[in-house]
Amino acid sequence: MDTISFARGIPSPECLPVAELADCAKSALERDGEVALSYGSTLGYGPLREWLAERHSVEPSRVLVTNGSLQAFHFVLDSFGEGRVLVERPTYDRPRKILAASGVELGEIAVDEDGLDVDELERELDGSPAAFLYTIPTFQNPTGSTLSGERRRRLAELVRDRGLPTLEDDPYGLVRFEGEPLPSVFELEGGERVMYSSSFSKTIAPGLRVGYAILPAALSAKLEELVASTYITPALLAQATVYEFLRRGLFESNLERVCGLLRARRDAMLEALERELSGRARWNRPEGGYFLWLDLPDEIDASELLTRASDAGVTFVPGADFGGPPSSARLAFSFVSPEEIDEGVRRLAALVAPAAAPV
Amino acid sequence: MDTISFARGIPSPECLPVAELADCAKSALERDGEVALSYGSTLGYGPLREWLAERHSVEPSRVLVTNGSLQAFHFVLDSFGEGRVLVERPTYDRPRKILAASGVELGEIAVDEDGLDVDELERELDGSPAAFLYTIPTFQNPTGSTLSGERRRRLAELVRDRGLPTLEDDPYGLVRFEGEPLPSVFELEGGERVMYSSSFSKTIAPGLRVGYAILPAALSAKLEELVASTYITPALLAQATVYEFLRRGLFESNLERVCGLLRARRDAMLEALERELSGRARWNRPEGGYFLWLDLPDEIDASELLTRASDAGVTFVPGADFGGPPSSARLAFSFVSPEEIDEGVRRLAALVAPAAAPV
Repeated sequence: MDTISFARGIPSPECLPVAELADCAKSALERDGEVALSYGSTLGYGPLREWLAERHSVEPSRVLVTNGSLQAFHFVLDSFGEGRVLVERPTYDRPRKILAASGVELGEIAVDEDGLDVDELERELDGSPAAFLYTIPTFQNPTGSTLSGERRRRLAELVRDRGLPTLEDDPYGLVRFEGEPLPSVFELEGGERVMYSSSFSKTIAPGLRVGYAILPAALSAKLEELVASTYITPALLAQATVYEFLRRGLFESNLERVCGLLRARRDAMLEALERELSGRARWNRPEGGYFLWLDLPDEIDASELLTRASDAGVTFVPGADFGGPPSSARLAFSFVSPEEIDEGVRRLAALVAPAAAPV
Repeated sequence: MDTISFARGIPSPECLPVAELADCAKSALERDGEVALSYGSTLGYGPLREWLAERHSVEPSRVLVTNGSLQAFHFVLDSFGEGRVLVERPTYDRPRKILAASGVELGEIAVDEDGLDVDELERELDGSPAAFLYTIPTFQNPTGSTLSGERRRRLAELVRDRGLPTLEDDPYGLVRFEGEPLPSVFELEGGERVMYSSSFSKTIAPGLRVGYAILPAALSAKLEELVASTYITPALLAQATVYEFLRRGLFESNLERVCGLLRARRDAMLEALERELSGRARWNRPEGGYFLWLDLPDEIDASELLTRASDAGVTFVPGADFGGPPSSARLAFSFVSPEEIDEGVRRLAALVAPAAAPV
């Protein structure tokens, strides 16, 4: 019995446009190999920076293209000195670990079904100032929650009023299956206090490692030396390949295809949860992204459940790994097929209330 | 009048095997796209790690493939805690800047025509212990010097006796135009205290950003978490492309071609120096690499000379930027053509002793 993974927050192999990228990589080098194969483009491949600048209505000088957006997170973080950093509770485990390891003082602001609790953020800032806020407003990792339109406007105002440097991390924003897209906090605030990061990991392919950040112009200029001292020049072949993919107009159609594949997976998970766990657990219904969030009865410890689940052939990540409650879990629907999702939820549900199951 | 750059330590565009890499990138994705386009290979693309392991006669678990070898330098450095770091004087400016910015205590050991002065290293270690040694024994950046066979053996013994963790950085070792290759310090020592780093920047193309390090197995396992927290997975498309290039047997023939191009450039520089500056300056005759080292008369300040040289259409990097004497300069022969080299040396020589030149 193969293990069914609701743990891996990565795209299913069929999401990857392998043949198109193979062709784009070849064309990219044939067209601009001397640039893409040499040193020099410290802040990223020029044509891609220009494309991103146009998409986000900023000057190309404000665009930093990195080896994945986590690297951009490091650069932005390193550019701020001392001071308390605020993150969401729960939040993406990598930044959480990085911040914990760096020894900075960490504050946490709750996330609910409408995203970051902006009232709590305001009270927190009243109590003690902060140097930096890290937030994932759309289809958040790990909860799948999305910050509501109303809260987005309030958050934009609050960070402007308080002068709070904020990084809006938005890798999932374009992976929307339904509902109306919401404006980014970056757009609402005007891009002065709010920096924006995203990547092509969820819209094209993660192994390309092409992420980016939109920064104040002064900051991207200041970061040039740090970037050069970190890796001299980012991996340009992948950036030139992404640019070729965009240039050929393949981005929108691929995104539509990926959203269709992911939507079928989310639907399969929602249907199976409804069938197997209705009344015994709660979960949300994200309109996009990779994840949904499962709230189990308080008496269930998700870490203990994971041990039994692994034996039964299904895995997930306990919510506590992201700073969530012990009885919560992150279920990724991105990696496995709808059929596997159906079977995986069946296996998981059989463990949630075994007393109620027929012997 | 175009400026002739002896400053840029990068390959001439004609060194880059653009068409072959374009084809390899396509094949690499067609053959193994699902792996190369996804997350997972934290320590590098598996087949490339295996190829490197075989080349260096180590287990694949000891091979870390990174986004350029400077990134490997960071990882190795981060894995050592407190303590004094020893570097060569002069040495590659990036590590020098990184170490200075990190605030570690720095010690410097002189490099002469036969490379690192091992006697001085021994006296230095007698005086005060060190946590780490960084050395570039072959065709060193910036001097072009190569550690002699005798000194290599003594260095290997010394670091073994003293238990001194050492990083042998060897990006230029294979770019040898003449003379017999020398064993690496890594090989002589047995790879216990000595770690080895290199890259495909000088043998294939720098923009690929494919570097690597051979580490003790315990260290590479320990670094996995740090690597994942830095960029999750390195840029795999470039690594898979390099592997395809190797797999097709293109590496040796390309290296031979590149060495031929570089040799012609070195020869052009040596001939022009002999013709223009004989008796007025001293320089070495490296058997490979990108650079040679110019010792100007003591009364000449190379930084001041650079200002005048830039006006006259030729640039270089003052030796002081690498920790060398004020009257020294690094001349890179890698980037410009033999004809430009000839003209560039002519321009430079006209400034070195203008009093002696006809008015």
